Amino acid sequence: MDSQEVVLLPKLSRVAVCGGTHGNELSGVYLIKELLKSKREEDGHQPMLVLSNPRAAQQCLRYIEVDLNRCFSQDALNSPLSNSAPFEVIRSRELNALLGPKGSADSVDLVCDLHNTTANIGLCFITFSHSDWISMHIFKYLQRCIPDVPMRYIHFDLPPDESYSLDSVGKHGFAIEIGPQPHGVVRSNTYTTMKNAVQHMLQWVHLFNSGTVFEGGLVNVFTLVKHVDYPRDCNTHDIIAAIHPELQDKDFCLLNPGDPVFQTFSGETILYNGSEALYPFFINECAYYEKGIAFSLSRRSCVTITAVQAHRDLSNKR
Amino acid sequence: MDSQEVVLLPKLSRVAVCGGTHGNELSGVYLIKELLKSKREEDGHQPMLVLSNPRAAQQCLRYIEVDLNRCFSQDALNSPLSNSAPFEVIRSRELNALLGPKGSADSVDLVCDLHNTTANIGLCFITFSHSDWISMHIFKYLQRCIPDVPMRYIHFDLPPDESYSLDSVGKHGFAIEIGPQPHGVVRSNTYTTMKNAVQHMLQWVHLFNSGTVFEGGLVNVFTLVKHVDYPRDCNTHDIIAAIHPELQDKDFCLLNPGDPVFQTFSGETILYNGSEALYPFFINECAYYEKGIAFSLSRRSCVTITAVQAHRDLSNKR
Repeated sequence: MDSQEVVLLPKLSRVAVCGGTHGNELSGVYLIKELLKSKREEDGHQPMLVLSNPRAAQQCLRYIEVDLNRCFSQDALNSPLSNSAPFEVIRSRELNALLGPKGSADSVDLVCDLHNTTANIGLCFITFSHSDWISMHIFKYLQRCIPDVPMRYIHFDLPPDESYSLDSVGKHGFAIEIGPQPHGVVRSNTYTTMKNAVQHMLQWVHLFNSGTVFEGGLVNVFTLVKHVDYPRDCNTHDIIAAIHPELQDKDFCLLNPGDPVFQTFSGETILYNGSEALYPFFINECAYYEKGIAFSLSRRSCVTITAVQAHRDLSNKR
Repeated sequence: MDSQEVVLLPKLSRVAVCGGTHGNELSGVYLIKELLKSKREEDGHQPMLVLSNPRAAQQCLRYIEVDLNRCFSQDALNSPLSNSAPFEVIRSRELNALLGPKGSADSVDLVCDLHNTTANIGLCFITFSHSDWISMHIFKYLQRCIPDVPMRYIHFDLPPDESYSLDSVGKHGFAIEIGPQPHGVVRSNTYTTMKNAVQHMLQWVHLFNSGTVFEGGLVNVFTLVKHVDYPRDCNTHDIIAAIHPELQDKDFCLLNPGDPVFQTFSGETILYNGSEALYPFFINECAYYEKGIAFSLSRRSCVTITAVQAHRDLSNKR
């Protein structure tokens, strides 16, 4: 494909911005509440604003019974629903009815889901699609609009049916993940970054729908290779080490074989025993202790995207 | 009192080190577990090691039903115990039996209780006594032994009977509070600082009990003046602002009348409307959102302490 070529894509008529999918990730919770309050005063096309897990947000918990953001694979959405189904399983069906059904022509055009992490990752887009040029163009636009915030594009390589997160319900979708921020805390710098990101994202959609041509270019993509768990006690399953001080807060700094990764509670250093230099991220994310993830490792690649423009008459059906 | 004078004080024969009083403050949880593991291998006098709220630590929660570290006033410890008493109320009685009874001749000589905060406070001693020279001498010793960590001595001005925290059960006692660290996360720098602090504290007790004279001197004391809550919505009681970026992480930096303290979620700045310049601390502590505390304010004073030495024959009874 010629990089000068302009690819015509359907307009993005229906956009959803979601927060509080994890109820203790407060930037998104308070941003959605604020946007809902000021909704009437604004002009123009409005996104759908969704507080995804209001009960968890009310209690300032990640979730009530199960992690809502693992409930959106086709299998999870379509399995029989028992009377004793966890709250989040029921809520995932409601959200799928509101924003989906996932994979159907009726699903919204774009879902942007807002998250925080205790890891020092700056602002990350997380998507399941390697070739979603809408997401990549919005990412490039945000990089230009908010140049003082380090931004990365993370790709989890799963087919759409198996993608388990809320943003996978839309025809296009991504999570915006901002850190570091402790869960249960809102820091104004993180909140402001998220607010700016959402405003610029909506601005991009508006420009795109108005016919603006967005130039192609290059995007660095970090593709998940594997997760690494903490060293644990064989009997109790308790962790026996913390992230090494030389790795802590070094998200997206190349980790080489032999670099320190853990420091045991008795003081010994544990080295990275992989054979390939990879880029770590989600280093010491609070919620991943229970998932057995101390950090994730990714490979960086450079993806060329073409120019895009909204097709005047094309409706966004698939 | 002549500052050259050496005050003779009873030996500290029974010392307790407690962690996990809040189950999601992980430096103390993992340090106590580590010290318990290595206990047999060490020589000499051993402190009592207490995982204060094992059930909350198991679930990585601050508490199960009520905040354990508010259960140790004499009123709370001596009120009738119903069958439906919260877990932490029952646990506080067990701990009082183990380390106290509070206010009695049988209580342990020193309780050191380990905590973390999301606030950028470095290492703080928190005590209820303004004139506990044992705590102050240990504080001065730690300042000398760990010079790279900013340390402050915080005083909550309450009579012993009303002091509500676990450390108030001992004849002497203080909390060691280290931050910033997100709750539910252990950072190796925070863990190592706590480990070093405990080791030096026990070293001081050993030297003191061996007859060492500790010179007098000056200690800066930050005495709590008041707590300041977040601006809130009158109806929902939701917070409507975050700590202002110019105040965030500025614990113990003098706050002057007219300085910014909050930034509302719609972007306005709220100024400090007090009439006196005071020192803020516990700025944006996660667990204090529910207690209605955005930050606390303190007045700094300088306290002269005399030299101390253990009395050879004096037992520590009061």
